[in-house]
Amino acid sequence: MKIVIAGAGAMGSRFGLMLHQAGNDVVLIDTWREHVEAIKKNGLRANYNGKEIAEPIPIFYPKELSDSHKQVDLIVMFTKAMQLKPMLQSIKPLIGPRTMVLCLLNGLGHDDTLQNYVPKKNILLGITMWTAGLEGPGKAKLFGDGEVELQNIDPSGEENARRIVDVLKKAGLNGTYSGNVMYSVWRKACVNGTLNGTCTLLDANISEFGATTVAVPILKSIISEFAAVAEKESVILDQEEILQHVIETFDPNGIGKHYPSMHQDLIKNNRLTEIDYINGAVARKGKKYDVPTPYCAFLTELVHAKEQILKAR
Amino acid sequence: MKIVIAGAGAMGSRFGLMLHQAGNDVVLIDTWREHVEAIKKNGLRANYNGKEIAEPIPIFYPKELSDSHKQVDLIVMFTKAMQLKPMLQSIKPLIGPRTMVLCLLNGLGHDDTLQNYVPKKNILLGITMWTAGLEGPGKAKLFGDGEVELQNIDPSGEENARRIVDVLKKAGLNGTYSGNVMYSVWRKACVNGTLNGTCTLLDANISEFGATTVAVPILKSIISEFAAVAEKESVILDQEEILQHVIETFDPNGIGKHYPSMHQDLIKNNRLTEIDYINGAVARKGKKYDVPTPYCAFLTELVHAKEQILKAR
Repeated sequence: MKIVIAGAGAMGSRFGLMLHQAGNDVVLIDTWREHVEAIKKNGLRANYNGKEIAEPIPIFYPKELSDSHKQVDLIVMFTKAMQLKPMLQSIKPLIGPRTMVLCLLNGLGHDDTLQNYVPKKNILLGITMWTAGLEGPGKAKLFGDGEVELQNIDPSGEENARRIVDVLKKAGLNGTYSGNVMYSVWRKACVNGTLNGTCTLLDANISEFGATTVAVPILKSIISEFAAVAEKESVILDQEEILQHVIETFDPNGIGKHYPSMHQDLIKNNRLTEIDYINGAVARKGKKYDVPTPYCAFLTELVHAKEQILKAR
Repeated sequence: MKIVIAGAGAMGSRFGLMLHQAGNDVVLIDTWREHVEAIKKNGLRANYNGKEIAEPIPIFYPKELSDSHKQVDLIVMFTKAMQLKPMLQSIKPLIGPRTMVLCLLNGLGHDDTLQNYVPKKNILLGITMWTAGLEGPGKAKLFGDGEVELQNIDPSGEENARRIVDVLKKAGLNGTYSGNVMYSVWRKACVNGTLNGTCTLLDANISEFGATTVAVPILKSIISEFAAVAEKESVILDQEEILQHVIETFDPNGIGKHYPSMHQDLIKNNRLTEIDYINGAVARKGKKYDVPTPYCAFLTELVHAKEQILKAR
């Protein structure tokens, strides 16, 4: 299968590598110069479950794409949320009438963006529990196990979705077909929406935030806003189950000692955050549906203030 | 006049010093050991508008108070907000039937606390624009000019209030009788409620916060919550005037380069904040009056989270 990975950061590298090893015709696309040049020179290097490997996978800047890259079967979107739209704009020529586009970005509202570039029947939405890191430009660090859950957003796309699930399964990526991926997307957004902005503002890891007396009240307020907005989109969230799911992340023996990705982006790497696609998306949707979302709105404002104070880019 | 300054920090030292120099019989009360011992040994020292002085003003720990300190004419409360209640409890024996108690603390709700210890007719509420700092234990740094505005909270107290205004005037403290001190208290609380918690969380000075694109929207949301709650207490705030008043503080050539006192308390000195008496008070009152105050509630929660993460005391 001819597959393009649009956004070859840590997670894109994992998917590209595993799909390539499974015999697919994989091409990576990215805009980060040092990363692209390193992969062009040395192939995609990785510490893959403890083994040092290098795979010669072609990588291009979006501007390098030519007719030879057309007739792609699958594009996997793995950009940062704010780069989804510019990336789709760049790779527009690759999106043919039969090209499936699988979006695995964190956050909400990406399906609306995708519909401006891809026929609805070809759009697949998913979430993944795989993890991945980068040791530096051109080199990934890939440990552990994970899953991908996906679904067509249009009923007519189910057969194609199941075909892509098989491709992911064959590559060891543990694809599963979801009967209700929107629920999973919202549930995962609740985790990010309660932990990312708060830990970033408080300069705390998940356990440190979770150990405060105000963590659970804050979680409840934010989850209730997500639920009220999700309901307007016919997704009925089980708030109590999600609350317990987030509380489990506080365990310092589990992932509690980690700093959420937004903290890494802003506090560690001085980069802009994805807050507009998590709490900011809920606040925007809340406005549209006339549902009050003050916690999401205020958290979004505070994270933007911090970005500006730190002159993040 | 026999005057007790209950809470002899920077501001209490200024008032104690100026009232003492004007010939009043002043006694200081405080609980900070190094500070009390230094003043017992060397008198209250100060850099007073550039002149080094030392005034032999008696200072006591609350537990040292005896019958000889009774029949006080005026007690000026200058503790941190959370120490108001324990201080009142300690100095209860000093509060006679004719003792006026003037409360100059920042924040809201202190009048309710005072009424548990002082007859309503003897309670004076005020705000001050004087500034003061401490160079170290026992030594104040007193520059610039200021005013005190005060009023009785019970109509029957007006004559006494005007008498205290005169005492402050004679001491150079620029006392004025206010026709509506509750308005001034709420207006000042709006300044603290918009700048203190936000700058503390964002680790920013007033100008840095003010320069962000989200500062004015945040100000508006918080001021509107203060106004909605104040209205339930028959104080009608001019939100637009207060907004402009806060925006003026952003000027880096004015006080903009300063960090609000809450930032100094928590981030610089690792001490608990007064958030429960500013935004927290509005959130509590909002609950009581069934007025939504999510920005105040969330800001209070986030500042408490930061206190706990930093193990502030």
